[in-house]
Amino acid sequence: MTQTDRPAPGAPVQTTTTTDRHGRTIHLGGGVGTIDGRETTGFTIWFTGLSGSGKSTIAHILEGELRRRGHKVEVLDGDVVRTNLSKGLGFSKEDRDTNILRIGWVCEVLSRNDVVAIGAAISPYREARDQVRAKIGRFVEVYVEAPLEVLADRDVKGLYRKAMAGEIKGFTGVDDPYEPPIDPEVVCHTDDRETPEQSAEKVIAKLEELGYISA
Amino acid sequence: MTQTDRPAPGAPVQTTTTTDRHGRTIHLGGGVGTIDGRETTGFTIWFTGLSGSGKSTIAHILEGELRRRGHKVEVLDGDVVRTNLSKGLGFSKEDRDTNILRIGWVCEVLSRNDVVAIGAAISPYREARDQVRAKIGRFVEVYVEAPLEVLADRDVKGLYRKAMAGEIKGFTGVDDPYEPPIDPEVVCHTDDRETPEQSAEKVIAKLEELGYISA
Repeated sequence: MTQTDRPAPGAPVQTTTTTDRHGRTIHLGGGVGTIDGRETTGFTIWFTGLSGSGKSTIAHILEGELRRRGHKVEVLDGDVVRTNLSKGLGFSKEDRDTNILRIGWVCEVLSRNDVVAIGAAISPYREARDQVRAKIGRFVEVYVEAPLEVLADRDVKGLYRKAMAGEIKGFTGVDDPYEPPIDPEVVCHTDDRETPEQSAEKVIAKLEELGYISA
Repeated sequence: MTQTDRPAPGAPVQTTTTTDRHGRTIHLGGGVGTIDGRETTGFTIWFTGLSGSGKSTIAHILEGELRRRGHKVEVLDGDVVRTNLSKGLGFSKEDRDTNILRIGWVCEVLSRNDVVAIGAAISPYREARDQVRAKIGRFVEVYVEAPLEVLADRDVKGLYRKAMAGEIKGFTGVDDPYEPPIDPEVVCHTDDRETPEQSAEKVIAKLEELGYISA
């Protein structure tokens, strides 16, 4: 994460488009692309993973680092979403999908206006995440992975244990589905293999490699 | 609406803050202020008025004019909101308020990132609108007014007539409350007194006068 004399975000950098190994379009060159036909330096980083896996923690470290580099950043994590977007929605598949598409839409609107939008919600269903990816295009998926036992052990509220004991129903990863991404751009392992800072650095390195930010 | 050699939006313009006749803080100088402690050139234009009064029409004319002047603009009107934000909400006062606060929150997030956010929803309750105003600060309220008879006459779907006949319940302005703003920055009269273009020009003139955009 060294700071070099890269151009400021928003500067008119020549964009090159190429295709990654999964056939997805990626944008090289440190900056400008299009979303919904509008030229923008924005893009979306989408964290997915179980409750307590560390999505918000890594997202906020990343937010700080991207701000330090001069980017405009908004984090839409569970707290923000519960307060401002998801009231009235429950935990059925349909409501969970509506929630994801809604967060995705806010990310899209921000991303097409030169903002780096960071979504950090469980987002358990692959199809909904892929719909958001397809809509935005400039989209980097980060799978935050930790074994269920690790999550249960560090869960101060004891929700995992209650769900495992059947006292809470519809808990993602226990008795409600979680579909991990098949080809995420980044996988973070938040058991003892990585610190949150190291996870955030992996994301930064990938953003540089994909050309969304300058190295 | 002549274009002069004003500075580009986003250019570092010195900001002066003053107080309007209602004791509200306004920002002079063609540009930069703060929202949530962040420096921004963005602000929110909030249209309120009955269904069919012309909010969206004026909002989209305004969008075009502001884009022409180099601003980034997003319109959150009824269509956008129904598709992306309000699913799961009904027409109780509580749900209507939730809807307004949610649109207001998206406007706030955009406004603090150099975007001109234009909200165009009925937003019948004064207190909810004022909550949004208080939260954003850089907020211009536009009351789009037309007499009920005019609205009923030009309503191709006949919803006003049905509501007046009691065939539809909970219709704002007929049997559900609409609280007009007490001190809106702009009032547009969309009966035969003004064309939508003239209404949009009134808003532009007020934005210039308040220093949100350069003359």
